[in-house]
Amino acid sequence: MKIIIIGATGTIGKHVVKALETGNEIIKVGSKSGDYQVDITNPASIKDLFDKVGPFDALISTAGDGYFGPLKAMTDIDFRVGINSKLMGQINLVLIGQHYMNPKGSFTLTSGSLSEDPIVLGAAVSAINGALDSFVKAAAIELDNGIRINVVAPDVVEESPEYFPFFPGHIPVSMHRVAMAYVKSVLGAQTGQVYKVI
Amino acid sequence: MKIIIIGATGTIGKHVVKALETGNEIIKVGSKSGDYQVDITNPASIKDLFDKVGPFDALISTAGDGYFGPLKAMTDIDFRVGINSKLMGQINLVLIGQHYMNPKGSFTLTSGSLSEDPIVLGAAVSAINGALDSFVKAAAIELDNGIRINVVAPDVVEESPEYFPFFPGHIPVSMHRVAMAYVKSVLGAQTGQVYKVI
Repeated sequence: MKIIIIGATGTIGKHVVKALETGNEIIKVGSKSGDYQVDITNPASIKDLFDKVGPFDALISTAGDGYFGPLKAMTDIDFRVGINSKLMGQINLVLIGQHYMNPKGSFTLTSGSLSEDPIVLGAAVSAINGALDSFVKAAAIELDNGIRINVVAPDVVEESPEYFPFFPGHIPVSMHRVAMAYVKSVLGAQTGQVYKVI
Repeated sequence: MKIIIIGATGTIGKHVVKALETGNEIIKVGSKSGDYQVDITNPASIKDLFDKVGPFDALISTAGDGYFGPLKAMTDIDFRVGINSKLMGQINLVLIGQHYMNPKGSFTLTSGSLSEDPIVLGAAVSAINGALDSFVKAAAIELDNGIRINVVAPDVVEESPEYFPFFPGHIPVSMHRVAMAYVKSVLGAQTGQVYKVI
């Protein structure tokens, strides 16, 4: 299987690569590293990536920035960091990528537990995660040629200790459990699912 | 109570006005009609509205455009119709409005059942609705001075028959039940709630 992984060298992405690299052709993509580079905030850059990589069987995105900060001081500009990157970046990977994907392929995006379990400073990220969860439910009923789509929604992960103080009472999830959710999405047969790793 | 209703002359808004007008001061706002006009896609227009209206006790938004169309042909530009209007329009009403609202006031936004119950052609609107549902859950834990926030998530409403063909098997909800959800949000005491009207 030819699998594109966007964010392949990131905290989560590198574990997903490891979990899927045996027996598959992995195309590692990053903003600055990897086999190919893409700026997911730019639809033209996404199209250029797919033109270069050609047809593929699965796309995993573990990429996307979001804004953390107090609601009291939050502005439209702050909020749109996540809109343009984690939300529209990942959605544009699907809108554009559906035209390059082989039949019976799959998209796997990344949201997060904040959609339903908010923290202080996280309102913008909560909204982006909620949008992604609902998007995959809706996109799943329209994608053609047996193409599937799911999203992985992890809580704070064990390899991001810098976030722990902002997630009081959250038990960081293991990288193994997170990586297995992506494997389930790609090698399983479900669609329209939100795989919570909490 | 001084209540600002954005979208006051719309299908839902006019019923919300009727349900709350006795004993309250209602400020009707529309894009082109009402006591005041606002372009919710423009943060400067929103700020200007609040500067004119002054302090208030509740804000209800029943406003916001979204894009309906096939996922197969959907583009970033299509998707951003709803991002800029129904999503960021309503979120900017909160981000800016929180600085004008009286203590113990309330925001009530509008999403819709498509966040969890998608239809063909509705992927962009599903995403926007999901974002709004998650946003209120997160904003509720940060708003100061006892300010509350909820969102009403109706299924297709009985006074929008033009949408019925796109919602097969959905039982259109009565305007009375929809209006009562806004009343519950404004006159009740809950916060961070998604009031589904289905």
